[in-house]
Amino acid sequence: MTTPTCIALPKICFERGFLADRAKLVRDVVIPYQWEALNDRIPGAERSGTVHNFQVAAGEKKGEFYGLWFQDSDLAKWLEAASFSLATHPDPKLDAEIDVVIETIAKAQESDGYLDTYIQLTAPDKKWTNLFEWHELYIAGHFIEAGVAHFEATGKRTLLDVVCKLADMIERVFGLGEDQNHGYPGHEEVELALVKLARVTGEKRYVQLAAYFINQRGSEPNYYEGEYVDHGLEKLPVYFYHNRWAYLQANKPVREESDPIGHSVRAVYLYTAMADLALELGDDSLREACNTLWKNLCKYHYYVTGAIGAEWNGEQFAGRYDLPNDRAYAESCAGIGLIFFARRMLDLELRGEYADVMERTLFNNVLAGMALDGTKFFYVNPLEVRPEEAKRRYDQKYVKTERVPWFGCACCPPNIARTLTSLGHYTHSVLDDGLAVHLYTDCSLETNVAGTKLSFAMKTDYPWDGKVSVEINPANATTFTLRLRLPGWCDSPTASVNGEPVDIAAHDRHGYLHLDREWQAGDVVTLDFPMTVQRIRAHPHVYHDIGSVALQRGPLVLCVEEIDNGDQLGLLRLPKTAQFTERFDADLLDGTIVIEAEAERLKPVNDELYSSAEPEVTLTTIKALPYCLWNNRGEGEMRVWIRES
Amino acid sequence: MTTPTCIALPKICFERGFLADRAKLVRDVVIPYQWEALNDRIPGAERSGTVHNFQVAAGEKKGEFYGLWFQDSDLAKWLEAASFSLATHPDPKLDAEIDVVIETIAKAQESDGYLDTYIQLTAPDKKWTNLFEWHELYIAGHFIEAGVAHFEATGKRTLLDVVCKLADMIERVFGLGEDQNHGYPGHEEVELALVKLARVTGEKRYVQLAAYFINQRGSEPNYYEGEYVDHGLEKLPVYFYHNRWAYLQANKPVREESDPIGHSVRAVYLYTAMADLALELGDDSLREACNTLWKNLCKYHYYVTGAIGAEWNGEQFAGRYDLPNDRAYAESCAGIGLIFFARRMLDLELRGEYADVMERTLFNNVLAGMALDGTKFFYVNPLEVRPEEAKRRYDQKYVKTERVPWFGCACCPPNIARTLTSLGHYTHSVLDDGLAVHLYTDCSLETNVAGTKLSFAMKTDYPWDGKVSVEINPANATTFTLRLRLPGWCDSPTASVNGEPVDIAAHDRHGYLHLDREWQAGDVVTLDFPMTVQRIRAHPHVYHDIGSVALQRGPLVLCVEEIDNGDQLGLLRLPKTAQFTERFDADLLDGTIVIEAEAERLKPVNDELYSSAEPEVTLTTIKALPYCLWNNRGEGEMRVWIRES
Repeated sequence: MTTPTCIALPKICFERGFLADRAKLVRDVVIPYQWEALNDRIPGAERSGTVHNFQVAAGEKKGEFYGLWFQDSDLAKWLEAASFSLATHPDPKLDAEIDVVIETIAKAQESDGYLDTYIQLTAPDKKWTNLFEWHELYIAGHFIEAGVAHFEATGKRTLLDVVCKLADMIERVFGLGEDQNHGYPGHEEVELALVKLARVTGEKRYVQLAAYFINQRGSEPNYYEGEYVDHGLEKLPVYFYHNRWAYLQANKPVREESDPIGHSVRAVYLYTAMADLALELGDDSLREACNTLWKNLCKYHYYVTGAIGAEWNGEQFAGRYDLPNDRAYAESCAGIGLIFFARRMLDLELRGEYADVMERTLFNNVLAGMALDGTKFFYVNPLEVRPEEAKRRYDQKYVKTERVPWFGCACCPPNIARTLTSLGHYTHSVLDDGLAVHLYTDCSLETNVAGTKLSFAMKTDYPWDGKVSVEINPANATTFTLRLRLPGWCDSPTASVNGEPVDIAAHDRHGYLHLDREWQAGDVVTLDFPMTVQRIRAHPHVYHDIGSVALQRGPLVLCVEEIDNGDQLGLLRLPKTAQFTERFDADLLDGTIVIEAEAERLKPVNDELYSSAEPEVTLTTIKALPYCLWNNRGEGEMRVWIRES
Repeated sequence: MTTPTCIALPKICFERGFLADRAKLVRDVVIPYQWEALNDRIPGAERSGTVHNFQVAAGEKKGEFYGLWFQDSDLAKWLEAASFSLATHPDPKLDAEIDVVIETIAKAQESDGYLDTYIQLTAPDKKWTNLFEWHELYIAGHFIEAGVAHFEATGKRTLLDVVCKLADMIERVFGLGEDQNHGYPGHEEVELALVKLARVTGEKRYVQLAAYFINQRGSEPNYYEGEYVDHGLEKLPVYFYHNRWAYLQANKPVREESDPIGHSVRAVYLYTAMADLALELGDDSLREACNTLWKNLCKYHYYVTGAIGAEWNGEQFAGRYDLPNDRAYAESCAGIGLIFFARRMLDLELRGEYADVMERTLFNNVLAGMALDGTKFFYVNPLEVRPEEAKRRYDQKYVKTERVPWFGCACCPPNIARTLTSLGHYTHSVLDDGLAVHLYTDCSLETNVAGTKLSFAMKTDYPWDGKVSVEINPANATTFTLRLRLPGWCDSPTASVNGEPVDIAAHDRHGYLHLDREWQAGDVVTLDFPMTVQRIRAHPHVYHDIGSVALQRGPLVLCVEEIDNGDQLGLLRLPKTAQFTERFDADLLDGTIVIEAEAERLKPVNDELYSSAEPEVTLTTIKALPYCLWNNRGEGEMRVWIRES
């Protein structure tokens, strides 16, 4: 299970609504589509090689390794997503396909447990020698996650046995013993996976192995300084730039980190594992480090879409308040990692701010990563795109102006798939003394609370509408605490229990409404989080956004697109007094809210590059739609931050 | 001579004033300092190797080549600057030093005329095989310019003979003949130099050789496609990015170019030669191409400081209106090249717009390249610097936050030196029927006009004050046209002749006041170009500058610096109604105008990264100084464009 408080996926059901539709899309389209991609059967997509490499390593076919050196992880993430899907929606054909590929993986695994087709097929004598660049431990982590998910979904130990053997090998190889490798992963991931493995197998030693990696990281003498010299590297790759080992979060011990730094996916995978270990081991110094990193991440380093990783060179964190919109990296995977981190922080302490970020990042950054038809993806999710400029400028070279069918480095699509197929892990926490609701979406679930079987149903049109109705049906009248998140974006929430208004302020604990009472079958809690268009302003030290506003309605950040507003979106200005109208257009983009307002457009008064002339101001209307739906109607300009006048 | 209308340098004298002070600094400090740098005698400066390489090639010492492959050109540019200096300020010691190094150069030259110490010392069998990357023709061009300047200054043919021999070899090697190399320079420069050589030697064949290079450039089949294949290059260097051979202005014939493109120094050196040839050969298609390139450069591609080359990756032109301030390349050398181009355009047609650009670029972009003490230089001249960000961000890696003593690639410092020592070439044109004044600065000159000896003296405190008094003393009363530039920045110029007001509009011909009369000894023309602080606004398609103003007073663009205004300069706002006060502070930065105004400063109201809060507006004053003087008081933030409220 992802964390100890996660509900088991088969126990929760998402049948209708915005997130359910996307989860269904993943099951029906994305998982089969990605299987084709991993098998190199998508015309026009970049070559993957993933399944091929395993078949070659397994001796099932002749051939050479192709694709990137960490390609194995794509299969692992797909297996995890497909397993999550099987957990909620049994599918004998998919189940059988998975069995076949697991057999191949098991055959590819060496007798000592080693598994990494890139090394096996291209450099078999170089195992564990280049932790800095190669991704053996990262890949192992993803396979461990997949093995756990597959076991939990199907009860089969086929993949779990493979990954236990792999983890056991890693345990033998790495550690502080004289004959052991004193290194740790160049790309974090295995740490959080080992915690999951420990939870599912009950083997605490996997937690200890994760703790070794975390504690060893950034210690002196620096492992990477030695490895780097061994490889005869004269200088580090350009994406290291000034950061040196901080690029890998390995410049100092993790407990001494204050601002998130370096490659953003690596960073949040690390922080996730740190939070896991803080919980598992009751380690207060790790908890404190997580709190500090969280606080500084939210204070200085994330976009209004919930994206992180502002620096395009090396897909990493930038400096404080340095959040360029057009050169943003804002990788889908980094957003997913932030969701992981947030979910763990909720287990350390139930605070609305963690769920607020989880919601913001999921509904905006992550969902934008996938086309409405489920077959095209963004890796990079900037907040401003001008196609001509993005195609020309070197510092926007990672910006795609349209989603693409697949990537040579295809980490993001399967990551989105595994997140949406495990939605239940993020929506609720099952606690000793009750249940907590983090994300609002139509669903029904069954669980045990305070020793009683509870069935729980939530009806809502969230994120389009903020009204939520919760029906609580314990098998017997039972006292427990229902904790309902009060979304940070909502200024005036209201709630009632069986029609009786609840005093929100009196029951608000760190952003969760605590309803502690004896619950009877048929009790109904209604919530209302009124959704109006809000003008969000960035801290003025974010120079890129000075004088501009982002529009947000409920959890959805809005954007303007060329197709609705003409080109040169930077010339639009929203008067401070402009009123918004809103309507739901069921025919547009599978149904979306449409926001309109009277606005201004700057118009050049001459064609001089420099003059004393002020631009003319003409009247226009602007039309804004949810950012997560952008670029589903062809290529064009897009902009989140709109100038205000 | 630079162009046919240039006044000979010994005939013009700059004794006092802003530009004269800088020219004196170059003579007294920069030229000796650079001589030390070229000889590797500056502690802490990057190693040059330039003189060393010639001494080794000449057999005067043992050793190996070091430095960059085009380092020879630094010596050539220094020789040119030093020769210009000798022309106006004879200096036996300098003269003798130059003689010694010319002797070394002559010894280093091979018997067939070849001269390039990098190739001679490292790859003697590879001559002319890599025009794409190596800079043999570029270096030849700079030596030719130096040879011309040295001959004109001293009457000695020592260096001129060397460069004629070199040019003759180039003429044998390159051309359309079957046995000839059909290539042309990867870095343009030799073309404009050959025109100068033709003018000084009277050998028209050098013009033809320049014309060959210009006409051959970008023709099909593309020479570089072939050379590139020969070198087994799999892909072009990253700075080529999408541009391919357009990076070298070699993607199509020069007459088909419309927007300036590619490496900006190469581009303007090419355009300079195109204008030279349009004049020399009466080639209307070249003239038309120059007009188009000029127009589009000014309309879309230059900064308010007169800088060009907005794209940091490859120090090249960016797209239309894409003029980022913090990531600007804005190289000093490119500004100098633009001045060259503008000066030639003035010979093709006397229009104020050319001199306006020349003045803007000289007074702002180019002068900013040199510290007030003459020993430190900028290569890159951005319009916004935040030191912490510039040191951290990869896409600002070329931005230096303080001027440096020398560069590994030291093209800019000697380029600034040779420009300031040949100031007289840019200030006036001597025409068949009179004299034209392009730049206002205190000076006196002697020339022949309409068959009469004319002595001409201009008194002014320009650029601090717009009053100019011109005394005209022809040997005999003579009819000729005095053309006085009406600066484009000035809305309300006034003029009088011997106290009689001149009707400006009636005498304005394309930005020059034409005074056509019989001039008597003692005639005085007075001009007044009132200088007030002007608010300049960029075309709104320059997104980086929307809502901001640049301040300009006379020809000087102003900036704000941290030392005067505190940090976070991006939070300053200048109300539309703010009035400017100005005073001259003789003690500050060797004397400068100081502009102050009441202004606002945005102040965060909370430390949330995103909230609905608008920043507080506090009152403050801002203090602006000329951009060309920035960073003479230590490291700190700087900003040209100031938000307007």
